[in-house]
Amino acid sequence: MHQDIIVTRWEGDAAREGQDAVAIEEPLEILINGERLAVTMRTPGDDLDLVAGFLFVEGIIQAASEIVAMQPGPGQGGENRMYVRLKDDWKQDSQAHRWERNFVGTSSCGICGKTSLEAVHCVAPPLPPATWRIPVRIIYGLNEQMRAAQHVFARTGGLHAAGLFTLDGQRLSLKEDVGRHNALDKLIGAEVRAGRVPLSERILMVSGRASYEILQKTAAARIPIVCAVSAPSSLAVQLARDLNLTLIGFLRGDTMNVYAAAERLDSNPP
Amino acid sequence: MHQDIIVTRWEGDAAREGQDAVAIEEPLEILINGERLAVTMRTPGDDLDLVAGFLFVEGIIQAASEIVAMQPGPGQGGENRMYVRLKDDWKQDSQAHRWERNFVGTSSCGICGKTSLEAVHCVAPPLPPATWRIPVRIIYGLNEQMRAAQHVFARTGGLHAAGLFTLDGQRLSLKEDVGRHNALDKLIGAEVRAGRVPLSERILMVSGRASYEILQKTAAARIPIVCAVSAPSSLAVQLARDLNLTLIGFLRGDTMNVYAAAERLDSNPP
Repeated sequence: MHQDIIVTRWEGDAAREGQDAVAIEEPLEILINGERLAVTMRTPGDDLDLVAGFLFVEGIIQAASEIVAMQPGPGQGGENRMYVRLKDDWKQDSQAHRWERNFVGTSSCGICGKTSLEAVHCVAPPLPPATWRIPVRIIYGLNEQMRAAQHVFARTGGLHAAGLFTLDGQRLSLKEDVGRHNALDKLIGAEVRAGRVPLSERILMVSGRASYEILQKTAAARIPIVCAVSAPSSLAVQLARDLNLTLIGFLRGDTMNVYAAAERLDSNPP
Repeated sequence: MHQDIIVTRWEGDAAREGQDAVAIEEPLEILINGERLAVTMRTPGDDLDLVAGFLFVEGIIQAASEIVAMQPGPGQGGENRMYVRLKDDWKQDSQAHRWERNFVGTSSCGICGKTSLEAVHCVAPPLPPATWRIPVRIIYGLNEQMRAAQHVFARTGGLHAAGLFTLDGQRLSLKEDVGRHNALDKLIGAEVRAGRVPLSERILMVSGRASYEILQKTAAARIPIVCAVSAPSSLAVQLARDLNLTLIGFLRGDTMNVYAAAERLDSNPP
């Protein structure tokens, strides 16, 4: 979603008025059983997926069936609210403690009285050893597919994207958002709502960088391979290695860096 | 700060082991008078600036003198904790309500029962009309200066940066972080600690995109001009227009788009 606005374009010493398209950013308030859980700045659209994905990757729900009802607005915030009804006792679950730890200021797992590297293990258990390998040409082909599908990015240059692919490189879905984390939450949420998690035979590609939070969400959805256009952070690498997740960075043309679990990749067949 | 790790580099059909530098990402837990306020994923370094900036842009403090004490660690989280002592009655302040609204899930202002566009006005009053204009060549020169000073980015490709400049284009400071918001909090926090806010005669430049949160922080510090390498979001444009803040996007070479308050810019003198 984008909005057309009038801007002043400067080229060297000359200015002129012109039209520009900007990506839409709006807040979304998520309420669970009437109580505010979080506010996220997102690009409107796919809000049901966004909220379902957010609840899933944070461990608040394990399946879409735990959502009794989910409805956008109304309210003074218009369509910028999502009312979610979970089982009445959801706060008494063991997840509640984890939730309290996680949602203060960030959706990261946080340090919760442990060191950061211990804390990451509360996210998800490691993935099992790879039973298959995929040829690297599959990975090299993902970037082009992402670009081709990023409609709003093409107009605004202002959106992050997350794409989901089969192990033979077919694109299944692509979500865009002003926030990289939201794009991934939308992508995972759509799969959760369709009953298709865990995503153990899928490849994830994200625009931009791979942070700790990206890896945390990837692990929660059990996606074994995640590719980023740019650099990973130290904690993203650590988490990928701990959880046996294949982490690829700087995927550009026919080159890439593999930071963890490189054994899922193989040379191209002759 | 970066860390050297061994990675697998693929080029076409060939793989080899090699060394790569990744930007360090670690959680920082901020505690106020013993209670957790927030956890943010950041690149260690300049943590005192980061926390002071975070408290300032969120309206929890108006000046560094309100911080009675601030000390990193110790704790099970090692240096990943910052203990802040404010006046004992800080929670009874009118700021406390704002704080509660703002810190649920994100450091954005949130929608707090208003529509998003009304909510932005709780951030800061508009800037006064411009009493000066600067030639566009000053702006065109910022990008190169940023690049030259981004040491860790050059090694890792994984850091965002925020730079502060005088109105004649001299660089005063540059902060890097895995999180764009943290880089800006560090930059503003250093100025807060030195007693140099409001920053009404300064130019800010940020790597990447200009989101609502970037503009919110810029407005809190009263910086009249903000430049981004990439696109702004719709809400960033709206906030800049409402607050009379000059917002520049797509600053590349000798070209740029001006999204708000273009009257602070002028052609180059002959």
